[in-house]
Amino acid sequence: MSKPLILISNDDGIQAAGLKALCEAMLSLGEVVVMAPDVERSAAGHAITLSDPLRVNEVDLGLAGVVAYSCSGTPADCVKLAVLAVLSRPPSLVVSGINHGSNTGINVIYSGTISAAAEGTIMGIPSAAFSVDNRECIDFGPAKAVACQVAGQIFKRGLPQGTLLNVNIPNLPAEQSPPGNPGGQKYALTVHGKAVWQDRFERRMDLRDRVYYWLAGHKQERKEPSDTDDETLKAGMVSITPLHYDLTDHSYLDDLARWELFQSE
Amino acid sequence: MSKPLILISNDDGIQAAGLKALCEAMLSLGEVVVMAPDVERSAAGHAITLSDPLRVNEVDLGLAGVVAYSCSGTPADCVKLAVLAVLSRPPSLVVSGINHGSNTGINVIYSGTISAAAEGTIMGIPSAAFSVDNRECIDFGPAKAVACQVAGQIFKRGLPQGTLLNVNIPNLPAEQSPPGNPGGQKYALTVHGKAVWQDRFERRMDLRDRVYYWLAGHKQERKEPSDTDDETLKAGMVSITPLHYDLTDHSYLDDLARWELFQSE
Repeated sequence: MSKPLILISNDDGIQAAGLKALCEAMLSLGEVVVMAPDVERSAAGHAITLSDPLRVNEVDLGLAGVVAYSCSGTPADCVKLAVLAVLSRPPSLVVSGINHGSNTGINVIYSGTISAAAEGTIMGIPSAAFSVDNRECIDFGPAKAVACQVAGQIFKRGLPQGTLLNVNIPNLPAEQSPPGNPGGQKYALTVHGKAVWQDRFERRMDLRDRVYYWLAGHKQERKEPSDTDDETLKAGMVSITPLHYDLTDHSYLDDLARWELFQSE
Repeated sequence: MSKPLILISNDDGIQAAGLKALCEAMLSLGEVVVMAPDVERSAAGHAITLSDPLRVNEVDLGLAGVVAYSCSGTPADCVKLAVLAVLSRPPSLVVSGINHGSNTGINVIYSGTISAAAEGTIMGIPSAAFSVDNRECIDFGPAKAVACQVAGQIFKRGLPQGTLLNVNIPNLPAEQSPPGNPGGQKYALTVHGKAVWQDRFERRMDLRDRVYYWLAGHKQERKEPSDTDDETLKAGMVSITPLHYDLTDHSYLDDLARWELFQSE
């Protein structure tokens, strides 16, 4: 029996350390193919490329057994293109990451890491996104152990059609959760939180005296319920949120039905 | 008392006919300012620009009373930048469109039209996205009447924090719903459907003998429940779906809680 095929993508780009870490983690579970953006595509949201051609190049990541491609498109493009035009068989799993920085609260909406996994889900493939709460992250050991455990569980349990897992891993020092002892990680089932950014734009002059704006800002500090992704991460636990793409606000349907628009003759 | 300020954006770009139509519709309700992408940004998803500067230029749309700017960023960038750095007061309403082509089913995830309105919602401003089920759409008259009615209702009723309206307008000939008789439109309250695309990539050679891929495909024909956005539109009615950005799949939380990961010692 052939090993399951695992497709890996991300939004930090083909050269990201977190991508290699995820490859290493997945090699113990199956055959690994990578299709990742050729440059960083953070905050790409669920963008796809309609009006431009996409280019694909094979890349040597220096990992035995890993076939890797870079793509000129977005994270969602990468997954779509790999599945429909490049892979020789359908993947059994799509994983995205390991992202340098958490994807919780409102970041879930902007995140290219999430969108790569979401595209897998849209295509009917069990999918998960992995992010670690550290933009530098030199030691991916604990995060790799988490990715392995979660992916193993997905293979064992499956996921419902239309649901993906958003996994956020706290930035704990390796000694608190050695790679040989993944049980050292505590997992919590969470809901998508409402943490937002306090955005601002900095207005500057370029070297030709023309104005430009650059997005700045910081995450708003506010206390949320303890079962949210952000609070769980702050408490030092791995946050696992099941996400789906039914955006209907069901709680508002009854109120909206009272609008005059719907009370026609 | 000053008129309410209405911010308009889109994803078809500053030159789109649908944008001008939406301006004309909103002028009867308030003061109108436009911030729209300088080029088409369809399928931009909820991308925002972190690693590049944004440029803004004032544009004359030829509409009396409308101040308009083009922006080098995505639809979400446009709304964020307008509210935080360009407008002199906070808008009372953010509207996006009128998009050339419907935004229903899975397109809601990819749509830049939706993301502009969603960004308004994230910033705490009542917001709505308008799309008409016709990529050419020469007569925006019926769609303008719908946009006016819906925006008027939003001013009257408000929207809950975190909820936006996704309005899709059927491509009915003007005589079936003359601009002077907006009551001719039938409205239906809908849920976000699951209609997907049957995607494929066409593999071609460029003029330098290098391979490129281009996304093609068509919307999968399948019957959905009659209360979905797509079926409502097919039935010739205006579809109004309340959307929100809590992506938690609440229906799967109980099952997921049984995974061994959460059964720690």
